[in-house]
Amino acid sequence: MNTVKFDCIGQYLLERLYAAGVKHVFGVPGDYVLGFYDLMDKSPIQHIGTTREDTAAFAADGYARCLGLGALAVTYGVGALNTVNAVAGAFAESSPVIVISGAPGVREQRDDPLIHHRFGPFNFQREIFERITCATAVLNDPVIAFRQIDHVIAAARRHCKPVYIEIPRDLVLREGYPMPTEAHEPLASDPAALSEAVAETLALLGKSVSPMVMAGIELHRRGLQNQLVELIERANLPVTATLTGKSVIGERHPAYLGIYEGAMSSEHTRYVVEQSDLLLMLGVTLNEVDTGIYTAKLDPRHTVRAALNEVVVSAHRYPRVALADYLSALVAAVKPAQAAIPPRPARAPASSFPSADQAITCGRLIERINQALGPEIIVVCDVGDCLFAAIDLQVHGQSEFLASGFYTTMGFAVPAALGAQVARPGHRALILVGDGAFQMTGTELSTQARLGLDSIVIVFNNRGYSTERCILEGPFNDIAGWRFDRLGELFGPLQGFDVTTEQEFESALLQSLACRDRPSIINVHLASDDTSAAMRRLAEHLKSKVQGED
Amino acid sequence: MNTVKFDCIGQYLLERLYAAGVKHVFGVPGDYVLGFYDLMDKSPIQHIGTTREDTAAFAADGYARCLGLGALAVTYGVGALNTVNAVAGAFAESSPVIVISGAPGVREQRDDPLIHHRFGPFNFQREIFERITCATAVLNDPVIAFRQIDHVIAAARRHCKPVYIEIPRDLVLREGYPMPTEAHEPLASDPAALSEAVAETLALLGKSVSPMVMAGIELHRRGLQNQLVELIERANLPVTATLTGKSVIGERHPAYLGIYEGAMSSEHTRYVVEQSDLLLMLGVTLNEVDTGIYTAKLDPRHTVRAALNEVVVSAHRYPRVALADYLSALVAAVKPAQAAIPPRPARAPASSFPSADQAITCGRLIERINQALGPEIIVVCDVGDCLFAAIDLQVHGQSEFLASGFYTTMGFAVPAALGAQVARPGHRALILVGDGAFQMTGTELSTQARLGLDSIVIVFNNRGYSTERCILEGPFNDIAGWRFDRLGELFGPLQGFDVTTEQEFESALLQSLACRDRPSIINVHLASDDTSAAMRRLAEHLKSKVQGED
Repeated sequence: MNTVKFDCIGQYLLERLYAAGVKHVFGVPGDYVLGFYDLMDKSPIQHIGTTREDTAAFAADGYARCLGLGALAVTYGVGALNTVNAVAGAFAESSPVIVISGAPGVREQRDDPLIHHRFGPFNFQREIFERITCATAVLNDPVIAFRQIDHVIAAARRHCKPVYIEIPRDLVLREGYPMPTEAHEPLASDPAALSEAVAETLALLGKSVSPMVMAGIELHRRGLQNQLVELIERANLPVTATLTGKSVIGERHPAYLGIYEGAMSSEHTRYVVEQSDLLLMLGVTLNEVDTGIYTAKLDPRHTVRAALNEVVVSAHRYPRVALADYLSALVAAVKPAQAAIPPRPARAPASSFPSADQAITCGRLIERINQALGPEIIVVCDVGDCLFAAIDLQVHGQSEFLASGFYTTMGFAVPAALGAQVARPGHRALILVGDGAFQMTGTELSTQARLGLDSIVIVFNNRGYSTERCILEGPFNDIAGWRFDRLGELFGPLQGFDVTTEQEFESALLQSLACRDRPSIINVHLASDDTSAAMRRLAEHLKSKVQGED
Repeated sequence: MNTVKFDCIGQYLLERLYAAGVKHVFGVPGDYVLGFYDLMDKSPIQHIGTTREDTAAFAADGYARCLGLGALAVTYGVGALNTVNAVAGAFAESSPVIVISGAPGVREQRDDPLIHHRFGPFNFQREIFERITCATAVLNDPVIAFRQIDHVIAAARRHCKPVYIEIPRDLVLREGYPMPTEAHEPLASDPAALSEAVAETLALLGKSVSPMVMAGIELHRRGLQNQLVELIERANLPVTATLTGKSVIGERHPAYLGIYEGAMSSEHTRYVVEQSDLLLMLGVTLNEVDTGIYTAKLDPRHTVRAALNEVVVSAHRYPRVALADYLSALVAAVKPAQAAIPPRPARAPASSFPSADQAITCGRLIERINQALGPEIIVVCDVGDCLFAAIDLQVHGQSEFLASGFYTTMGFAVPAALGAQVARPGHRALILVGDGAFQMTGTELSTQARLGLDSIVIVFNNRGYSTERCILEGPFNDIAGWRFDRLGELFGPLQGFDVTTEQEFESALLQSLACRDRPSIINVHLASDDTSAAMRRLAEHLKSKVQGED
């Protein structure tokens, strides 16, 4: 009888990751995961070391948003538990991140010893991750380990959510047992519901005089951007996007009307969306941020909403209609619309930049950044006023705006940009970040510097937690002043600029754009009362909620 | 009928914290916790803002180790979930940290909206913290909120573990309902078991020729350091301590023999401990680190082990004997021992420091630091070789050595030192930290700089993850080189030194000791193969475990 030698479990995991498109794994090593790191070092997958584990998770999130799947590998306890916030963020924002955690060996765990990095029963770590992932597996049985690996990777792709894989260190080199591969089964639609939903949509489109599309985040997560373009071009439909869906359509497309988010939208976008007699909402999540803190005025009688697995028309639902199927069928069946696209308002021509001796403002900063955007630039935006200001940016390509727009965790941008730039070598990250958020994770830029990546960081420095200042002022909103432009002193190669005027910003931006072998950081001093209009409207609303008023 | 106006819930919480000795609360504000911050700002409790939430939790841990209770206040989701690792560490190390998390209002939660910072069902955050705390409370019912607050604060003190309090923002100003205060009931001993355990111990002491005490971490956590001193002085007993119990007795006490941790101990300490015919283990936890990775050779037939709530003599147990009661009874009953204390080995006299032109080594560094320690210095030590090297330091007072000695989470030292120095204004933190750990949380030193605290940081810079290098070398152990001495460029006031020789270190140390109004940081370049002997022994052992060998 032949003895077939199968892969070891660690090897199989690496192969499945690679086959699924994961060419890089982020993380910090530790003794419970060192055996896996050693295997990874000998595999075609490249390890990208980060300074901390939470930033590894943010980087994997940014990578996943660009390529459809990302991964990190960390040690037990001290490593994995450091990623909980970032992984919860990936869950909230539907980003398929694979968390690989080392663990004490199965044999080590048997006698229940008080070994280092332990904080409770050994299963508690998995129980914590069960609350922030869509599937978990502890690979403690070689007979089913391959099957478990297939299952969680498939779950991450199917649900676009993080998953958790725990690998006890004495199982990494154990031979596994091949089983039938789980087919990556897409969400299946009910054919009757699908055709009826499409037919009703077409009938409504035929009767409508001002139909339009609202594009949401799920189009990005399901990779449906091209079908969206096909639909709006065939049917001649104007299109808006939500904030979390920003850049799901290239924002220089002639049919694009800008971001809609209720009272926070520009007046024109708001008017066009709210007067539409047929709003086709595709992959839109009705969360607090995308509805402009529930200020959106969308009459359900005039909307067709295609969610991930159902279509809602007015007050009735078609369950089990997958977004992808619905969109394909619609594209195939739709006739060119009769209604003309309302003309886009003429953009005020950009006034000359820089004005001599003019202190830089948030508005002018965005205006100038807008001019600088090119097709190779991915904008990665942190939370705070920079996010609200960035609504007005027009990025070029599809999915070239990344932000923690719904979960709104500070500290996302710098490490997520690392992930994005590793995922897309031909691209360049432009990072917009506040001073408070940069103090949380900004030193991860050290990794961009180490790898020679040419990210450009623009710090919106308004000295403290400005969003909160607008809600409730107090000394707790003050933070230490950092000279962000001097960061290269701590870890080079990195060029830094300190900027207070338009002229200084112009010069710093041009030098940053020209520098292709290292990161640049521009510390932009803004007046502390110079906040974006969107943020002022938002803060007014939030203020009333601090004490629970309604 | 008189209408009595009671406190609001937020106010009551602040009062109970203050009464329990919490004069400072660490944290980062966020809109779900802003109302509580506003109340705190008007209370006698001082808020200490940190750059991130995990560092706030480490700071609260350091504070709790100094004063018996510490607290942090953070926002929901993005804030609280960032603290999971640090709070798990406090749990593993028995440090009573109170986590206060804001939350969406009860009325806001009712319709299950997709509001920002949400990552799942609203109760998931509590469920995560249930796995890393000893008590949790969600204050969503004003009628019982005061009672819940009393209960969790009492639990933290009783069990010396973290607790979790979640306060929905619309309940902060709601009037609460006073109830009978829960008495802080200490662990009660069974009188028969107590007196029998003490009698047996005394009988064994009477027969023993080489009795001694091993002092553990629980003596610190229960505040029993003075009783320990009384015992060893009355009974003339030599004493050793575990690594996690380091400094539970002042290390210049004549009866003190140094740290015992199995094969990692000094030869003398190991010999004396392992040949003792009666080892009185007080508050010792037999974890992996304190047993020198299970290399300790302690014959149970020659030990009496008083744990938190039981006494174990040879192979029999006295359940329900509280450590505090046992120790008091023993102190009261013990007769001066007949056995003479074995003489301590003469310490080699410190050779003159600095030697001209001599490159600095880990051993010489520790030797010089030892000379510099004074009664006002608290040593706060991170994980890695600095921890193993620090075994040889002799701190002056009680509980003046803080480390994550068992959970061994990197990044503990700088923020924990912030907490310690805030807790003990007359003291000064000497921080020992590796280059990898400093990259994780070292920028929290910004807060020490902002507050004008005179912490001294000594970076053991050996360019990478050295502990892991000893176990398994690979490119994943390399990290970016940071010029730690230039940190003041990023955020001053802070003085920095770059050091490669003994002479340079001497000069930097003297300048640091003389500087009392700002932090100092000394970047000490060590040869990458210059590891402590204890670490080399440890790594040898760990190496065999990476692949699960035994």
